[in-house]
Amino acid sequence: MSIAASIENILRPRLPLATNCLIPLHRAISVFFPTQRVFLPRLLSSSASSSVSTTIQDDAQSVETEEDSSVPAASGRSLIDVNPPRGTRDFLPEDMRLRNWLFQNFREVSRLLSFEEVDFPVLESEALFIRKGGEEITHQLYNFEDKGGRRVVLRPEITPSLARLVLKQGKSASLPLKWFTIGQCWRYERMTRGRRREHYQWNMDIIGLSEVRAEAELIHAIVLFFERLGITSSDVGIKVSSRKVLQAMLRRHSVPESLFAEVCVIVDKLGKITIAEIEKELISAGVSFEAVNGIIGVLSIKSISQLEGFLGSDGEAVVDLNNLFFYLLNIMATLNVKSLVGKLFDKAFDREGKLRAICGGGRYDRLFSTFGSDDIPACGFGFGDAVIVELLKEKGLLPDLSRQVDDIVFPLDEELGGMASKIVSSLRRKGRSVDLVEDKRLKWVFKHAERSKADRLILVGNAELEKGVVRVKILATREEYDVNIDELVSSP
Amino acid sequence: MSIAASIENILRPRLPLATNCLIPLHRAISVFFPTQRVFLPRLLSSSASSSVSTTIQDDAQSVETEEDSSVPAASGRSLIDVNPPRGTRDFLPEDMRLRNWLFQNFREVSRLLSFEEVDFPVLESEALFIRKGGEEITHQLYNFEDKGGRRVVLRPEITPSLARLVLKQGKSASLPLKWFTIGQCWRYERMTRGRRREHYQWNMDIIGLSEVRAEAELIHAIVLFFERLGITSSDVGIKVSSRKVLQAMLRRHSVPESLFAEVCVIVDKLGKITIAEIEKELISAGVSFEAVNGIIGVLSIKSISQLEGFLGSDGEAVVDLNNLFFYLLNIMATLNVKSLVGKLFDKAFDREGKLRAICGGGRYDRLFSTFGSDDIPACGFGFGDAVIVELLKEKGLLPDLSRQVDDIVFPLDEELGGMASKIVSSLRRKGRSVDLVEDKRLKWVFKHAERSKADRLILVGNAELEKGVVRVKILATREEYDVNIDELVSSP
Repeated sequence: MSIAASIENILRPRLPLATNCLIPLHRAISVFFPTQRVFLPRLLSSSASSSVSTTIQDDAQSVETEEDSSVPAASGRSLIDVNPPRGTRDFLPEDMRLRNWLFQNFREVSRLLSFEEVDFPVLESEALFIRKGGEEITHQLYNFEDKGGRRVVLRPEITPSLARLVLKQGKSASLPLKWFTIGQCWRYERMTRGRRREHYQWNMDIIGLSEVRAEAELIHAIVLFFERLGITSSDVGIKVSSRKVLQAMLRRHSVPESLFAEVCVIVDKLGKITIAEIEKELISAGVSFEAVNGIIGVLSIKSISQLEGFLGSDGEAVVDLNNLFFYLLNIMATLNVKSLVGKLFDKAFDREGKLRAICGGGRYDRLFSTFGSDDIPACGFGFGDAVIVELLKEKGLLPDLSRQVDDIVFPLDEELGGMASKIVSSLRRKGRSVDLVEDKRLKWVFKHAERSKADRLILVGNAELEKGVVRVKILATREEYDVNIDELVSSP
Repeated sequence: MSIAASIENILRPRLPLATNCLIPLHRAISVFFPTQRVFLPRLLSSSASSSVSTTIQDDAQSVETEEDSSVPAASGRSLIDVNPPRGTRDFLPEDMRLRNWLFQNFREVSRLLSFEEVDFPVLESEALFIRKGGEEITHQLYNFEDKGGRRVVLRPEITPSLARLVLKQGKSASLPLKWFTIGQCWRYERMTRGRRREHYQWNMDIIGLSEVRAEAELIHAIVLFFERLGITSSDVGIKVSSRKVLQAMLRRHSVPESLFAEVCVIVDKLGKITIAEIEKELISAGVSFEAVNGIIGVLSIKSISQLEGFLGSDGEAVVDLNNLFFYLLNIMATLNVKSLVGKLFDKAFDREGKLRAICGGGRYDRLFSTFGSDDIPACGFGFGDAVIVELLKEKGLLPDLSRQVDDIVFPLDEELGGMASKIVSSLRRKGRSVDLVEDKRLKWVFKHAERSKADRLILVGNAELEKGVVRVKILATREEYDVNIDELVSSP
């Protein structure tokens, strides 16, 4: 610790309250906290030790706290790259307010559904994500080897961590678990499409419920979320589909069950490749001609009645879907988005079809057996922070999220800083958000108050202080009045 | 997309409300959302495609939603490692409630100080953290090369990212900036001391204020935080020190300014190595014998009056410290922690001396020039999530943070699921946190209600429904009464 001076006994103030001790101090004052830190040292000591070696105090270029002072440009020396790593984001205050607002809505809907929040490390063991199959996700893993030689990843999704934690809980977990989390996910891909390498994702998962009610609850959450944000059924739709339909079709045509996984992978390409290409791939996978026709037919089904025509009304797939819609109808009956029910599809998507899916999810009972446990019924969804914001922007549904300061306190003279501090401290203890501004011109302060959407401006002046008051300006109404200083600084 | 069936037109329900369609469904039902996802696919499709290939439906081992059902043990197959990567944490609901409570306090204090929240990627360019000097921080970087050959790190601290963003803002930033952030920081060290590799850190920073008022505001924030949590001056102290004191001492003994950085690094080791070792290192660095004695003398100073004895009362260091304490006294005058002022030290630490520092920080004006910009006055602190929780535990100050569900709705008969869903949906729209429970015994439901700290248990039974009511039990008072169903399901 470079404790150049450890000071005690300062209950005896060294300076009387009325001196000019608040006249602008030398810049770059060095009262500081220590270098032995909570966990990781902050930059202070190192920057000091690496740069102070050439000159001890040379602050001629320091920024003055003047009218609209701003960050100086680099003068000659080569500036570091000021951008965050490729594909990642900084969040300025206005970005952060939007993100907090969005997350707040995620959290509030999760609370309404009585889900509990959990979280996992953004860094996970690679083994958790290495799976069979040629999905995008395994090709785009943000993986690397740590210094201990372990293969790790910045997680591309949250579900495997959640499943890991469920297994870790073991017998102590009382099912069903209803968990949600909001976390950052990563992928590594060449930055060709301008897509980012990270995003935040809201996940809701139900572990231990095999009934279709679990799916209904998750859809309920998504609908409540849309409703809160002012998104209607004319903006978005939700698609629902059942793998059992495909299974039933394969069984009907006596396609070996060992082919099911491969068929799913091929059929999942719908929308990315043409129907003709899907047909071709299915045939080269060994699916019979009739079965291919059946599968293609099933892909174009648009209603349950059509589906009943294909599979009959007593098949598992049809019963499940009917049950789901029965639940949803009872839920929607009290929601303002009734017509949404009429267009229940397969995921949440924008009606105009311009954006990628808003969210997606489903059942993953089988995940647990790939992790070496018995299977556990589980389903959930992931809801990203990117597409929804694009949609809200397009629909003009983004809220006005300006900064909100309660009070700005401004001493008109430098020697009034002590009194201003007292007032600031007292107001903060009363729960008000207070900004103390000094060494600025009054014009700047008014501009600043406007930018900060401050309620009140409190001016501490000598003339008023002599009368025992300060001047208070209500910024919205331009009202002005004096307030007794004792009222302001008294404890609540 | 494996859209086996896309369904429309389900405004015409396929099942009448009164049928037995809610009789337990086949397990592992497969109604699911699609594989084309928001951003990164969830695990569903892959787990299905990798595991379903051998057997289509074999749910004999699935967990039944029975009395106190819990996660099954692995049966023979080798279980994945259920622990998070070494040195990292999972957050179960109870952990997350504590974390949210702590962060909420960080946020609330930041709001009181009128700081704005910002955020940065947890992954940063390594260049931002590679500095001269032999600090722990550079040895323990969690760094690696990404697939594009870039050197990146999981940030060990947040300040460099913040400085980067300030520079990125350039002229558009109106100083002073008052920013806070709460983020995860990483380090890589051999796990010998049981220390974690990640922690969350609350940072508050003021950019563009050279006056000691900036330090006073930051200390104010820390004091307010402690006060909110019930931590008193008998629990913690705050140390304050000034590098200028050391500078003044070096100047007095004509130590070349080029040695200042090195002297700082050596002096920072105080507490880790002995005074004798510090003396030895200073001498081998080329500091004169008298200067070493002066430095050692200064390290033991405990009050400003002592300091004045060493340096006189008009030196920069003494003036700065006096000013800081003047500010702090005015702040503390309205706080309940007056005696804290009496022991202002150098960082926040626990009085018993058992724990590492609770938080630390200071000025880093010079950081900007190491980044190639002109210097900008800046100071801030980092406040970790680990030591404070240890302290709160020890002092018995951790709050009771149990789960809080408003209503639990339980249909007594399976066919009442539809009506229960209607009630649940309606209550949620009214802002209540509602858990729908089905297929459990009443005993389990009561236990669950107790665990969830539910306000009300709403029982949907056939006999009551015939009278148009449901049974409501207030769990705290054990009151019971009937509520008209129309009241519950009406829109607000």
